[in-house]
Amino acid sequence: MNLDFTFYNPTKIHFGKNALNHLQQELSAYGKTVLLIYGKGSVKKSGLYDQITDILQKADKRVVELAGIKSNPTYAQLQEGAKLVREHHVDLILAVGGGSVIDCAKGISVSAYCKDDPWKRYWIDCEEVTNPIVPVASVLTMVGTGSEMNGGSVITNEAQMLKNGRVFGPDAYPKFSILNPVYTYTVPKYQMASGIFDTFSHLLEQYFSGQDDNTTDYVIEGILRSLIHSAEIAMQDPENYEARSNIMWCATIALNTITGVSKEQDWEVHMIEHQVGAYTDCAHGAGLAVISPAYYEYIYAYGIDKFVRFAQNVWGIPTDTMTKENAALTGIKKLKDFIEMLGLPSTLRALGVQEDMLPLIANSTIQGGGYKHMTAEDILQVLKACF
Amino acid sequence: MNLDFTFYNPTKIHFGKNALNHLQQELSAYGKTVLLIYGKGSVKKSGLYDQITDILQKADKRVVELAGIKSNPTYAQLQEGAKLVREHHVDLILAVGGGSVIDCAKGISVSAYCKDDPWKRYWIDCEEVTNPIVPVASVLTMVGTGSEMNGGSVITNEAQMLKNGRVFGPDAYPKFSILNPVYTYTVPKYQMASGIFDTFSHLLEQYFSGQDDNTTDYVIEGILRSLIHSAEIAMQDPENYEARSNIMWCATIALNTITGVSKEQDWEVHMIEHQVGAYTDCAHGAGLAVISPAYYEYIYAYGIDKFVRFAQNVWGIPTDTMTKENAALTGIKKLKDFIEMLGLPSTLRALGVQEDMLPLIANSTIQGGGYKHMTAEDILQVLKACF
Repeated sequence: MNLDFTFYNPTKIHFGKNALNHLQQELSAYGKTVLLIYGKGSVKKSGLYDQITDILQKADKRVVELAGIKSNPTYAQLQEGAKLVREHHVDLILAVGGGSVIDCAKGISVSAYCKDDPWKRYWIDCEEVTNPIVPVASVLTMVGTGSEMNGGSVITNEAQMLKNGRVFGPDAYPKFSILNPVYTYTVPKYQMASGIFDTFSHLLEQYFSGQDDNTTDYVIEGILRSLIHSAEIAMQDPENYEARSNIMWCATIALNTITGVSKEQDWEVHMIEHQVGAYTDCAHGAGLAVISPAYYEYIYAYGIDKFVRFAQNVWGIPTDTMTKENAALTGIKKLKDFIEMLGLPSTLRALGVQEDMLPLIANSTIQGGGYKHMTAEDILQVLKACF
Repeated sequence: MNLDFTFYNPTKIHFGKNALNHLQQELSAYGKTVLLIYGKGSVKKSGLYDQITDILQKADKRVVELAGIKSNPTYAQLQEGAKLVREHHVDLILAVGGGSVIDCAKGISVSAYCKDDPWKRYWIDCEEVTNPIVPVASVLTMVGTGSEMNGGSVITNEAQMLKNGRVFGPDAYPKFSILNPVYTYTVPKYQMASGIFDTFSHLLEQYFSGQDDNTTDYVIEGILRSLIHSAEIAMQDPENYEARSNIMWCATIALNTITGVSKEQDWEVHMIEHQVGAYTDCAHGAGLAVISPAYYEYIYAYGIDKFVRFAQNVWGIPTDTMTKENAALTGIKKLKDFIEMLGLPSTLRALGVQEDMLPLIANSTIQGGGYKHMTAEDILQVLKACF
């Protein structure tokens, strides 16, 4: 570990079949008014909405609601929530749903009392938050983003055709998150697979950077191996509690910053996907699944030893008798096989991208990279390779 | 992951060569009076003491000191510190040293305003802390216990010949800890090796439990592999920053509760060592190194599949062609080789234990276990096997 770092994650996680039993006690630490925010009604179908409103009532809370958060939450919805917070003097924002709902809750939380234009201030200029932050908590129903234990907030500004991710500091992390793997059983298989690959990508994007011998890489390899094993089981048997609980926890620790400590990191795959998402509204993990193999085939030569290690330690390929080139490509081939096993697409076309969008996506993507710095032209090449 | 759990760790870690630069800023969050506690003077020799008192002065703090904390901190020292806290109205206890000093700081922190006998209340009856807790922070100079990011406080009551460990809740965790691997360069090799094995043992004691497929086990395997790799480098080249930084971080995450989530855990090796330590004052990790192989040879048959997995995933032994028995024992043999590489002892005799102490140690050890419940007679057999 060569890079200095600060690690600080004050989110409390209640995990397991009985995790919701902690909600009432947790609520007692906050004031009377709760903004309950959720998506398009699946929490009502599953009965979770009734359970939670029942607990809110027992806890003597006044409840304000914001429903219908989209899978790519919009800045318009965020502004609507911020207005509710101000009008009702909300004391706690309780997000019930997946990463989209929690991301939106955090966006509302930091924006409600921002005196300037929050989009410009926080998602474009990435300024520090100095205004009051309304506490957020979550009940997670969909796995992948890790939003339940970090400061991430990806918001789509429809007017500007921009999907920007911002990572806020620990003050904006959920105060507590309730994770019951059983809630994820009702998620459609395609969404489950998309969430699994989102997690997978978070781990890869931290792993494929740096040249040092770093404990974090060993930890990531362990989580990847567990995730691969449990994903294979869950695709066959979605109600396998052991597999779904492992997947849920893998997703949380894959992006609670512990797998990023002392790592340079390379988030270019996410940067590209955000712009694909802005143009197509595709499932985030599906977008990542299309882009990742093409991206890693484009850059692997610049960090080849790490790709050899990936093949060996994550996929168990005996690389000793192979050329580095061959070993690295075999590892990426295994990644493709994994994506196929998950039933996710392998072309941008399948996500609804049209050929004339490619330069627009390439030119609007934030440039970065890890082993190789990516220019707009490099990004265009990657997009063409997976079109 | 089958067991429900709550994960909550609010300690902030500043890690790296420049970590101390954060101290002044962190101090600004606390009141005027700081109790500075440290060991037997190595922090003065290294110059760290001067650096820290300089920062305390810049931060305009009033400093009270408690020096000479023993490697097995005593209840008498704890009481002395508690008296200082009350007399001087201390606002923050700053521990500079290894696990012993931090454990003692936490003990002082929860005891200072306890109206009853804190030893009985907190280390015997393990009651919840309801009295005010004085904030603790640490600057770590010795690696192994993980005390910098948890609620552990192992205290030796010399009058009662008892060394008891207590794990306090997150309110008693250090508020922040400063981890600079360079500070560990001056630790004598034997102490370094002892700390490495303490960490190793923490990981094993969480790993060797449960029958479920659990992400935590994959994470532990990753950390063990990193620790083995870096330990081999550090034994040859103690000033290898990369190796020492990996070892330091492995120690922290090995006992910050992330490697224990949804695990039954088996802390019997620590229980036995605590009593060996109470009778001999041996280095904690050295005690664990003597007991561990004998303990695991005694119990492996009760959880044989996990021991086969240990051989394969941690030591890279191709177990497919072996009997389970042979594979499990080969893994334990690798553990013995690792201990030998670290230059740690392999017999209780070498730690200063005398034969007539064995029944006393066995009978005073708290009984527990993982794959097998350990009676006093079982413990005696283990002690005899490594005498």
